[in-house]
Amino acid sequence: MQALVINNKVSNVCAGGDGVADSEEICASVASRLKLSMGPTSVLPSSTGVIGWRLPAKELSSDIVPKAIDTLQTESALPAAQAIMTTDRWPKIRSCTLPDGVRIVGIAKGAGMIEPNMATMLSYIFTDATVTQGYLRQCLSEIVEESYNSISVDGDESTSDTVVCLASNQVPLTSTDDWKEALRKICQGLAADIVRNGEGTGHVMRVSISNYPGSDRDARRLGRRIVNSPLFKCAVQGNDPNTGRLAAAIGSFIGREDDSSTISLSDVSLTLGGRNIFQGGKFILEGDAVERELSQHMKDAQYNEHDNFPRHQRFVDIGVDFGSSNNNNKGKAVVYGSDLTAEYVAVNADYRS
Amino acid sequence: MQALVINNKVSNVCAGGDGVADSEEICASVASRLKLSMGPTSVLPSSTGVIGWRLPAKELSSDIVPKAIDTLQTESALPAAQAIMTTDRWPKIRSCTLPDGVRIVGIAKGAGMIEPNMATMLSYIFTDATVTQGYLRQCLSEIVEESYNSISVDGDESTSDTVVCLASNQVPLTSTDDWKEALRKICQGLAADIVRNGEGTGHVMRVSISNYPGSDRDARRLGRRIVNSPLFKCAVQGNDPNTGRLAAAIGSFIGREDDSSTISLSDVSLTLGGRNIFQGGKFILEGDAVERELSQHMKDAQYNEHDNFPRHQRFVDIGVDFGSSNNNNKGKAVVYGSDLTAEYVAVNADYRS
Repeated sequence: MQALVINNKVSNVCAGGDGVADSEEICASVASRLKLSMGPTSVLPSSTGVIGWRLPAKELSSDIVPKAIDTLQTESALPAAQAIMTTDRWPKIRSCTLPDGVRIVGIAKGAGMIEPNMATMLSYIFTDATVTQGYLRQCLSEIVEESYNSISVDGDESTSDTVVCLASNQVPLTSTDDWKEALRKICQGLAADIVRNGEGTGHVMRVSISNYPGSDRDARRLGRRIVNSPLFKCAVQGNDPNTGRLAAAIGSFIGREDDSSTISLSDVSLTLGGRNIFQGGKFILEGDAVERELSQHMKDAQYNEHDNFPRHQRFVDIGVDFGSSNNNNKGKAVVYGSDLTAEYVAVNADYRS
Repeated sequence: MQALVINNKVSNVCAGGDGVADSEEICASVASRLKLSMGPTSVLPSSTGVIGWRLPAKELSSDIVPKAIDTLQTESALPAAQAIMTTDRWPKIRSCTLPDGVRIVGIAKGAGMIEPNMATMLSYIFTDATVTQGYLRQCLSEIVEESYNSISVDGDESTSDTVVCLASNQVPLTSTDDWKEALRKICQGLAADIVRNGEGTGHVMRVSISNYPGSDRDARRLGRRIVNSPLFKCAVQGNDPNTGRLAAAIGSFIGREDDSSTISLSDVSLTLGGRNIFQGGKFILEGDAVERELSQHMKDAQYNEHDNFPRHQRFVDIGVDFGSSNNNNKGKAVVYGSDLTAEYVAVNADYRS
């Protein structure tokens, strides 16, 4: 890969005309104007925006691509992070410099239609480290599961999913482990930023599943079920510790799973804000003082509409532990999701107009 | 069954104390005060409301049950339909008199946490027809699939699901077919009423799936996926024919199904308000006139906040046809769902306070 070309507003999906030819025309324009040695196939295109509209390929290749090339610079990735925004409220950018001088810089966009199934948004990560394609691919695949694939804003999958990591092989790596850890941190940070910047997000939930009688992937699916429950999302929005809705979401998920027979309710415990709220098959939260404490935890994690960027990084913390007595796979996952607000509805009722 | 006893406000689920004993205490009080010949086990209890709160069984059995018994009458089921309401805006009641004099009367409650998996609400149907238990059960099971199990408000399943049909065997039936058809109409009417009266519902969508390469049940799951897409629901709320979101919801469902390889996109056609919008693998709706026509169809189906009860019965009509060339099961389903509004969020952020 020698260049990326990214457009927003139009997703180039299911429109009239030939979407592949439109995209190839733009890549050819980029390759020829940048005089890329490896030609158009070394240009990776991404499109995000409304589904069903046609990409204005002619105007883009003849007018917009030259203008974009005129603004290329190596000082900052911030203009790129800003340029790919659609309904994002803020640009999403993270970077890290390792002791050996290696840099990693990542940007991402995405605010709605977020339920990555690899992955409901665009993210581009650049490093000057010297790494093999195989090792980079292996690291990225593993880390994507624990970052972009562990978030949800609304459970609606996108048609246009991209995470790209490019290495320029300019600086030798002294520790591949440190580099991989830095890459993980950047990806997890950008993934959580996407939820933080989600359409109308008022709180970010962090759901930690442990000892699930299934794989880590199954545990992650349960986490997503919880953060995608409209009723639980609304309760979080209102700082209402309506823990029954949390239990209902878990029960609904388990009831549909084949392995539900291996779960003993009496081994399950739930926490909210670190406080035990369900144990031995019963809720243990009667009393106004407990309700107030739980509600306060939610208020502390709430965003203020007038917050500056970057936003605070506090969570509504939910723990679901299936108990150490199960002898199965002990699946675990940490999933990030947003609450549901009137602002989300307003943004998405008016998106195109 | 000789009596039903229904409470709202508290769902008697996962609370401290012994929920079964609490429920039995109330049934015993009803049986003894009504002097039922078959005792407490002939009383069917239902509870709906907040999960995790304890039922005040003592107060209910000693104070409330006698008061409820004092108000029993045979003139109208409307007070019962009103008494079981929680966040419902209107009572839901339907009735029918057959030519042979047989009556069927049904009531239902439910407005949020509606994704019946048999079934996220309460509904009680009474008939004076003479029918066997076996035939009644067979009819009800079949009809439930096409009524209560074909609706969704928010995709959140409830812990407290009940549909009961009681026959008093007072009037001989001249046509079991006519009776079954009347029962079907009442159940489908009540099921659609639940969506119409859903929390914050501004439009009711009716999604008709045909020729799906799978069972009717699979087709119904696809229909539910569409009516549960937060983004598509928001678009409907805003009278925005954002048909890309409709296609994305269908694609997301099919992409997760094993049988996706049997679907040819070029055979799929989509309609909105009866107009063909997608055919031969492409959207065919470019142009402002088409957009305006589709938007008008959605506006025509919108509810006015000040509508009286009963509301109008118009739908946002969506058709998804997988084409007659597939030789599989040709699954079909009609699913009813609501849009997503700021009012839904407000109701559910404040439910308990």
